[in-house]
Amino acid sequence: MSGNERIIIFDTTLRDGEQSPGCSMNLEEKLRMAHLLDELGVDVIEAGFPVASPGDFEAVNQIAKTVKSASVCGLSRAIKGDIQAAGDAIKPATKEGRGRIHTFISTSPLHMKYKLQMPPDEVLNAVSESVTFARSLTDDVEWSAEDASRTEDDFLCRAVEAAIKAGATTINIPDTVGYSVPEEYGAKIAMLFARVPNIDKAVISTHCHNDLGLAVANSLAGVAAGARQIECTINGIGERAGNAALEEIVMAMRTRTDMLPYENNIDTKRITKTSRILSAITGFSVQPNKAIVGANAFAHASGIHQDGVLKNVQTYEIMTPESVGLTESKLVMAKHSGRHAFRKKLEELGFDLGDNALQEAFDRFKRLADKKKEIYEDDLIALVEDEVVRHNETLRFISLQVIAGTTGPQTAELCLNVEGEEKCVKVEGKGPVDAIFKAVRAIYPHEEAHLKLYQVHAITGGTDAQAEVTVRLEENGKTVNGQGADADTLVASARAYVNAVNKLLLKRQQKNPQKMGVNP
Amino acid sequence: MSGNERIIIFDTTLRDGEQSPGCSMNLEEKLRMAHLLDELGVDVIEAGFPVASPGDFEAVNQIAKTVKSASVCGLSRAIKGDIQAAGDAIKPATKEGRGRIHTFISTSPLHMKYKLQMPPDEVLNAVSESVTFARSLTDDVEWSAEDASRTEDDFLCRAVEAAIKAGATTINIPDTVGYSVPEEYGAKIAMLFARVPNIDKAVISTHCHNDLGLAVANSLAGVAAGARQIECTINGIGERAGNAALEEIVMAMRTRTDMLPYENNIDTKRITKTSRILSAITGFSVQPNKAIVGANAFAHASGIHQDGVLKNVQTYEIMTPESVGLTESKLVMAKHSGRHAFRKKLEELGFDLGDNALQEAFDRFKRLADKKKEIYEDDLIALVEDEVVRHNETLRFISLQVIAGTTGPQTAELCLNVEGEEKCVKVEGKGPVDAIFKAVRAIYPHEEAHLKLYQVHAITGGTDAQAEVTVRLEENGKTVNGQGADADTLVASARAYVNAVNKLLLKRQQKNPQKMGVNP
Repeated sequence: MSGNERIIIFDTTLRDGEQSPGCSMNLEEKLRMAHLLDELGVDVIEAGFPVASPGDFEAVNQIAKTVKSASVCGLSRAIKGDIQAAGDAIKPATKEGRGRIHTFISTSPLHMKYKLQMPPDEVLNAVSESVTFARSLTDDVEWSAEDASRTEDDFLCRAVEAAIKAGATTINIPDTVGYSVPEEYGAKIAMLFARVPNIDKAVISTHCHNDLGLAVANSLAGVAAGARQIECTINGIGERAGNAALEEIVMAMRTRTDMLPYENNIDTKRITKTSRILSAITGFSVQPNKAIVGANAFAHASGIHQDGVLKNVQTYEIMTPESVGLTESKLVMAKHSGRHAFRKKLEELGFDLGDNALQEAFDRFKRLADKKKEIYEDDLIALVEDEVVRHNETLRFISLQVIAGTTGPQTAELCLNVEGEEKCVKVEGKGPVDAIFKAVRAIYPHEEAHLKLYQVHAITGGTDAQAEVTVRLEENGKTVNGQGADADTLVASARAYVNAVNKLLLKRQQKNPQKMGVNP
Repeated sequence: MSGNERIIIFDTTLRDGEQSPGCSMNLEEKLRMAHLLDELGVDVIEAGFPVASPGDFEAVNQIAKTVKSASVCGLSRAIKGDIQAAGDAIKPATKEGRGRIHTFISTSPLHMKYKLQMPPDEVLNAVSESVTFARSLTDDVEWSAEDASRTEDDFLCRAVEAAIKAGATTINIPDTVGYSVPEEYGAKIAMLFARVPNIDKAVISTHCHNDLGLAVANSLAGVAAGARQIECTINGIGERAGNAALEEIVMAMRTRTDMLPYENNIDTKRITKTSRILSAITGFSVQPNKAIVGANAFAHASGIHQDGVLKNVQTYEIMTPESVGLTESKLVMAKHSGRHAFRKKLEELGFDLGDNALQEAFDRFKRLADKKKEIYEDDLIALVEDEVVRHNETLRFISLQVIAGTTGPQTAELCLNVEGEEKCVKVEGKGPVDAIFKAVRAIYPHEEAHLKLYQVHAITGGTDAQAEVTVRLEENGKTVNGQGADADTLVASARAYVNAVNKLLLKRQQKNPQKMGVNP
């Protein structure tokens, strides 16, 4: 131990991140991410907003049951039913002293007047009552002053004092709208330390949005002023321009321990993998120049730079690619690789498939290996991604034949297995993708679902690499992302669309699917 | 005028940005971006590194000839030949008092020892000599202390003093490796103001890289300490994790004039368009949660947020989408629109096509309008993007027929016009894209070119939207990006690949294509 102050890393990828457009995940995907976050070493996983929907409740509850090290947190408004739902959802973790309820209410004049339509004194009462009730369900209670950065100092002090008095053990000061600049945000935290009499009884937390590109700097300014918890997300996902990116916060502290003498529990070597799997699950891209996890972050392109790097790597590199787990995608398997090696490799990559799923994935791997000489880690991840979500399928892809190009009508001949029965159609479309999607609709009509996104992920290793396709469908406010992977882009497109429809059918079965979002 | 201090916006999209992997642009693309930057209102356009290659020289020279308002800057090492080349390239702008030479040398112990292999006194001499010589070619000379953030204070003061004494009018203090934190970077600038006797004779400038996610905060800390020029790029492109993003810097100053009492010349309503056109030209994506210009930056997704926004838009919105020129992609044209309306619309979108190119674009528009009921602005941009780069074509796409899917071999039947002669082949591949690319290679072999990236841009408006494809090829260190647009993804892929090969053939004709990069 260095003797440096310990910073609590509170990850809200599965709550604030998940509620941003294009990032919604199903139960299985959330569980998978929660385990990756646990392995990454985050201290707290905010797993969802239990009262928002049965699906959210179930996700928080399952994560609380299965995550091994991190605390598991459920969000709630300052409403008894919300808090009860959060308390119920996290109960399996609470039994082990790792269950946190995070309750919040707005404290800024603008939010109190227009959003809450409550006078300040009522808000203060709500703070005390909500925290007191939350504290009756678990010893670990976090309270957030929504829109804190636009809250008047006097009122914020009174609210924070009341929350701590009522039993809050963590006090979060969100820059909800991403409005602050570092000096100002640091001053706000310092002001609280100077004026709130019982401030030493709670951990102070930052939660900064990136609307002006300042989320990381604001978080660090908060820590410099005394905050000891940072709320952040993988890849900086979250409402609008997102939250402070976990990888940037953590690597800034690791790289500049001289200026930022803090430590945390993150295993930085797992950062790249966690980032990539989140991207693959959500179809939410990371731009090449994204700090730490972008494809160019460790690329030293220019001639002079390359020369400098060859002479002494530190001339242009302040951290090593290895420190964030970035290694070249390795040749991992070939055609003759056996089932045992395949299973082992998947385990290394963080996948734990049941026997049937494993067999199916292995069969698809063999077919892929026939088409493609060398199988890279990225190929396997794409392939298994596709396999992992293949549960409870109503539709199953069988075969596809496409004729496209400039010379005639574009046609798709598609066969799907629909609940055990094989159905085939041949339809024309405007382009091959349009024809394929029309074919799925012809076989299994779903008029209310709208296509929101069709994305072929960039292929960097030759055109015979696995194509990964994401299809996003929306129906009555519910969004699903389907993925498909195949050496043939069009087959991958068909698989992705079918996968999205399957996910949509699962969503339809949820009783109360209306999802409320919220964002301290 | 508000009486606030004026900040000079120095845009290096075409130099630091352009030299990052995947962002290289040809002459025409650079000219187009330069005009967009000029219209955006940047004060200085760093247009390239003239000595690096004849192509770079030509680009800087053409930009100096044609840009109307901004100063045009050429980069050079502290070497006479570099400086002369920069001076020659910018001469057309220098005549109008708008030509800047930017010369740099490393000042950190690490860079002086390993990269330059020069003792500090020699470096100081080089500073004086290089600036003096540059000043003999133009009155507007910027000097950069490369790796300034890791330079010892005493030596940095001596170097800055020497540069100003020799005639530098702007002094740039780059955080070359993206290593600084805001407090430290601001302190460095403040230290210079406190200790360098002639500091009032130059404008002090920031140039911050984003390796730790702090580029914008560092730039603003520099300004708070007295810097009056910020170097930045559109979309934050640049070496590794990129530079401070122009759009974030500018919107932070506009949104928080209370905390950041500065003004600048940027027409913020042009930000979104400039960002999107840069993305389209380079194929370099902007992630959805990117501040200001990401697709989600102004999306208020969650139920509670939507409710708040409806009650009072300021509850969750600190700036308006209109302030950055973000408007819904509008229905702009239909099948019956005429050639005049088409030309006018293109002019509105910032495209200025010659008569032949216009006619070709119009013909393609008509064909597109036949296939697709409604033509949106984005469709037009994609279509014209494809048209603009169609000069000096060796290969020309004629037709394509593809058979793909799971049931047989994937085949592409492709016809290209090669220097006036029609050639057709039919080949098999691993997937339709592989087959198409193999077909191009079969018609026109180019064994030394390697595919580095194949990307289908996300389609958000229905599968019958224009598909935009980017293909990146590399040959002997030279990189080109080909674009193709069509309602049929596969046709767009073929067009993009053909376009990339055409660009590659142009590059081959350059005599000294070896490109040196550099990055203060």
